[in-house]
Amino acid sequence: MRAEIISVGTELLLGQIVDTNAVYLSQLLPQFGIDLHYRITVGDNAARLTEALKTALSRADLVFTIGGLGPTEDDLTKETVAQLVGDEMFLDEELASKLQAFFEARGVEMPESNLKQAMVPRRGRSFPNPLGTAPGAAFETDDGKAIIVLPGPPKEFKALVDQCVVPYLRERVGNASNVIRSRVLRLTGIGESSVEDAIKHLISSTNPTVAPLASPGEVRLRITAKAPTPAEAEAMIDEMDSKIVSILGHCVFGRDDETLERVVVESLIARKLTLAVAESCTGGLVASRITDVPGCSAIFLAGVVSYSNEAKKELLGVPDDLLRAHGAVSEPVARAMAEGIRRVTGADIGVSTTGIAGPTGATETKPVGLVFTALAADSGTVVRRHQFAGDRTDIKLRASQAALDMVRMSLIAQQ
Amino acid sequence: MRAEIISVGTELLLGQIVDTNAVYLSQLLPQFGIDLHYRITVGDNAARLTEALKTALSRADLVFTIGGLGPTEDDLTKETVAQLVGDEMFLDEELASKLQAFFEARGVEMPESNLKQAMVPRRGRSFPNPLGTAPGAAFETDDGKAIIVLPGPPKEFKALVDQCVVPYLRERVGNASNVIRSRVLRLTGIGESSVEDAIKHLISSTNPTVAPLASPGEVRLRITAKAPTPAEAEAMIDEMDSKIVSILGHCVFGRDDETLERVVVESLIARKLTLAVAESCTGGLVASRITDVPGCSAIFLAGVVSYSNEAKKELLGVPDDLLRAHGAVSEPVARAMAEGIRRVTGADIGVSTTGIAGPTGATETKPVGLVFTALAADSGTVVRRHQFAGDRTDIKLRASQAALDMVRMSLIAQQ
Repeated sequence: MRAEIISVGTELLLGQIVDTNAVYLSQLLPQFGIDLHYRITVGDNAARLTEALKTALSRADLVFTIGGLGPTEDDLTKETVAQLVGDEMFLDEELASKLQAFFEARGVEMPESNLKQAMVPRRGRSFPNPLGTAPGAAFETDDGKAIIVLPGPPKEFKALVDQCVVPYLRERVGNASNVIRSRVLRLTGIGESSVEDAIKHLISSTNPTVAPLASPGEVRLRITAKAPTPAEAEAMIDEMDSKIVSILGHCVFGRDDETLERVVVESLIARKLTLAVAESCTGGLVASRITDVPGCSAIFLAGVVSYSNEAKKELLGVPDDLLRAHGAVSEPVARAMAEGIRRVTGADIGVSTTGIAGPTGATETKPVGLVFTALAADSGTVVRRHQFAGDRTDIKLRASQAALDMVRMSLIAQQ
Repeated sequence: MRAEIISVGTELLLGQIVDTNAVYLSQLLPQFGIDLHYRITVGDNAARLTEALKTALSRADLVFTIGGLGPTEDDLTKETVAQLVGDEMFLDEELASKLQAFFEARGVEMPESNLKQAMVPRRGRSFPNPLGTAPGAAFETDDGKAIIVLPGPPKEFKALVDQCVVPYLRERVGNASNVIRSRVLRLTGIGESSVEDAIKHLISSTNPTVAPLASPGEVRLRITAKAPTPAEAEAMIDEMDSKIVSILGHCVFGRDDETLERVVVESLIARKLTLAVAESCTGGLVASRITDVPGCSAIFLAGVVSYSNEAKKELLGVPDDLLRAHGAVSEPVARAMAEGIRRVTGADIGVSTTGIAGPTGATETKPVGLVFTALAADSGTVVRRHQFAGDRTDIKLRASQAALDMVRMSLIAQQ
């Protein structure tokens, strides 16, 4: 079964609001094995809405419209749909009196125009709106297709989807012939094209599918499986998951909403190890990411953002001659910062970052994006050199990712 | 002139990401008097993308595609567009060597697959990508229409729109007949409903319009004016801007992309004053926001994330008896932290945060969201008590906003 979503509203086309309703519905449909091939946005214009509806009905079995059910003149979705499918709606007396009551409860006279909200399809059904005056509705066509009209205000939309559309879809598609499940593998320390090259043969697979998506410092692989039952879909995903892990190994740091900082904090808690960070180019981002994780106070002792050379000397005891001989952005200073924060705080693990986030500060030998990250522990100190791309915030993000990943890898190595 | 936007990406249809790119472009087009009648979203599928492109070209003069320019197999937008308009692209040697250099700088071998990103239209032009490896392009059709292909990663997309598409549109459409201009006033230290109550009479205005939008720790007011010329639109906006400022005064901290951290850093630079921060509940977020601003190293000396009591004592010299008598989340400790970081670093201004970000850590007298922020300077030390709502990250954000705003207000007071 195929669906199409039509979002209606000139404010959407002017970019005045972000269409979160369509996103919410898009996430729901795969759970019923319903494919979504197109999403359309049109303004409050009957002619263009009609054209969009015709095209959608020619391609899909289910068409959802979002918005345009208000009482005003430019709210014309329900009327346009009714005309297209040739359904003369009738006034639902019960709904009309509910509307009356709704206004009386607020001590307001109901405007005549609101009555149009009590008009319901002759063929199909009306969906009561628990949070507003605009009910939704399902119109049905001669050839058994349906157009489901839903209100635009996100709270009302969500309520109608959860309380009316979900049961309606269950009825219509029954226990979906095919369910879709998906899982995201999250990787770091490797680029998108290298990932693609490494698992080309898996990316060409059609069921489950594997789709790469890159963001600064991270590559995501979405595995999507279609199967008769959720269990079978999950099993297919598990199999693909382990195939990928067997190739890309420790580059896979987590799944779905597991952030790198969360993985790091949880591994430290599990091993009862404490952490402290000394940041230069990341400017506090590493500490901030760690402290985004609830419960981090069990393992996170302190962070120092040593932005000036003075701070590196005063707060971390970085020797002045190191700074003079090699400069703040150097392997020896990264090392001294990691060992310094570990010494000052008594943490089991000390991590540091120093680099050139740009746009200024580059030299002949030290370009923007040059970053050193270091990790100091009982086993000794390791320093890594990186050359990152992107703007200042990208470089900060990539550097914080590299620092957190050094902690993650050091814990894996300990196993 | 009419435009249509086609967003390409299966992850959009699955509701995995929200399409903020299309919103950004939608806001831009009216400024050139370009009408947007439809926005389409399709998956990574050549056949359906082709159908969407054909339909769009039949209705619009300009078609924008967003996404699908990556190096991987499912990135097929540019190839699909080229085939539709019958443009055999050629390899831009200069672009190819730039790509090579991009990978060499990272000491990585460039995967073959990346070369396709150096293919450019024979008729039309290529738009360089300052932040990534995927350039954009404008393909031109026999009947003088254009398809502008742009990359999906929001930062790269925004950079190409600002640096390449805007000039391209100026060339193509010249000065529009009726232009729309808008400006966002950014406020902090006041709630959305208080803002609405204060300027109710202005919000009801129709041209320019004033639309409030709230986010944690900030309220935005978008002023939008329609006029025959940009100058007239700007004049209308200026007038509304000063009306609002005359009512809400210093709650207005900036406009458009002026962040609070940028305003703070720039005022400190202007006054040649240095800053250092001591953070507990914000966990490095204040320092990270400050260091997001290029040039901050001129005024930002250091930050300490004193998450444990030990760190508060060791790194900031907070007296042990204060911690025992009042607890870490208290007015005296916030004061001692601000004075401590100022003493340790010798900064002109020391700022601190201490509070309960939750979800755990609350006590009978100290609920989640209780935060103290303090500012220490020559003129003395000021402490403010806050009770914030929201989850852990909301509270961190609101607390960092409050700390930064204390700096901003202290500088205004000095004028």
